[in-house]
Amino acid sequence: MTGSRQTSLTFYHAWSSSASRKVRLCLAEKGLTYVGKALDLGRFQHHSAWYKALNPSGIVPCLLVDGLALVESNLIDEYLDEAFPEPALMPDDPAARYEVRRWSKYVDDVCLPAVQKPNWTRSMYPIAKLWSDAELEQRLAAIPTQERRDLWRRMARNPFSEAEIDAALDILEDMTLRIEAYLENSSGPWLFGHRLTLADLHAAPYVIRFEEERPGRLRPLTARWWDALRARPSWSTAEIGSYEDDSARTAAEAIKDPA
Amino acid sequence: MTGSRQTSLTFYHAWSSSASRKVRLCLAEKGLTYVGKALDLGRFQHHSAWYKALNPSGIVPCLLVDGLALVESNLIDEYLDEAFPEPALMPDDPAARYEVRRWSKYVDDVCLPAVQKPNWTRSMYPIAKLWSDAELEQRLAAIPTQERRDLWRRMARNPFSEAEIDAALDILEDMTLRIEAYLENSSGPWLFGHRLTLADLHAAPYVIRFEEERPGRLRPLTARWWDALRARPSWSTAEIGSYEDDSARTAAEAIKDPA
Repeated sequence: MTGSRQTSLTFYHAWSSSASRKVRLCLAEKGLTYVGKALDLGRFQHHSAWYKALNPSGIVPCLLVDGLALVESNLIDEYLDEAFPEPALMPDDPAARYEVRRWSKYVDDVCLPAVQKPNWTRSMYPIAKLWSDAELEQRLAAIPTQERRDLWRRMARNPFSEAEIDAALDILEDMTLRIEAYLENSSGPWLFGHRLTLADLHAAPYVIRFEEERPGRLRPLTARWWDALRARPSWSTAEIGSYEDDSARTAAEAIKDPA
Repeated sequence: MTGSRQTSLTFYHAWSSSASRKVRLCLAEKGLTYVGKALDLGRFQHHSAWYKALNPSGIVPCLLVDGLALVESNLIDEYLDEAFPEPALMPDDPAARYEVRRWSKYVDDVCLPAVQKPNWTRSMYPIAKLWSDAELEQRLAAIPTQERRDLWRRMARNPFSEAEIDAALDILEDMTLRIEAYLENSSGPWLFGHRLTLADLHAAPYVIRFEEERPGRLRPLTARWWDALRARPSWSTAEIGSYEDDSARTAAEAIKDPA
């Protein structure tokens, strides 16, 4: 099966989800065709029984490969890079491969929780604040992890303050300074030299959100890198829009729940 | 440099640390020689300025490869597997490689926070409870991450209850049931078939602690797997002892702080 273009790929995602965007960019760079299934997070399709049968964590994305459900965007993208080796999206050198994984883990562990604060405040709080206590408890009961239940309860009853959102955006700004430092030391236009890697793709969704919330603050090398990334054909193939447009699209174009 | 046995390896670790044990097992399976530097966690050498210059997170382990500091045990072991390919400790098939990474991430995200509760209660609370408030604040100031500062403050002033430790051991017991399920579906004696992989090595330190805290409860296939793992030459090369012995050794055999 390895590397075969006959492999059947079905991708469950949300248009506005940063983790989903990481995988859409990877699929596009690999030139892979797949059946896309966009979920409506505002209708909680990711907490539905049919979706949790695919991903018990109840989060997007999930890639079905010949029936095998792969979760966690960093791991899905590494799988894609190994199963479909051309074009390579990892460096060849083991130390550089380590650095890409370390960067991807940093983005996941640090930038993802940060971006959730402005995102959830803009897209989920307007929905959650209208719930009655009974409705909230019913919604929470469908969420399979304590961490996510806590986040939803927090969001519904005690939304993030402006100061908390500012602190989260500071974390994303720090990420852009790290990107600038990588580019200063890079031998090419990308974070790790002349080859575009998963490191570039994995940062991109978080730079989108930073630029939308604090426009015009990217450093010179990062601004050039950012223009080059968005000029790639993969950017349109992956259908990366603004957070606002993609959130609206999420609600408008979601799949129907399976019977 | 890749794969060269001339590479210089210096390993900063603690004898009793689960993450350190994962890397010691991997180094032993690869037959690599290295300079070991054991830190005394009870004297907080991992929070010292000289160590944080190597690993800004102030946690063990850290592997210096020709001067490059690698952190995060899962990523260190994947680096070792790629830089020193023989014997291979990852499957060949991309889907199986994904499964090993997913398992390692689960161990890191779920089992590591669980094992900290009994471990810290046994080894750190007896130290931390004696601190004055001023001494506590001084210790906390040296800890570089909020998450770890919170853990230390909790430990010093509000130790985990027996119920919390029990819940943590339930998580480790669930891990052993997952191991049993993998073995039921495996084509060989290891989690992923006939080849020992990082999946086996990454689970081992957590099985040690589970067996010590709740002895004699491993399921049949897991018990056989566990015997086979401990019978390997790597087990003694990596100097894996009991938690109690390794904690005593940590205090007795630590390096001196560099001048």
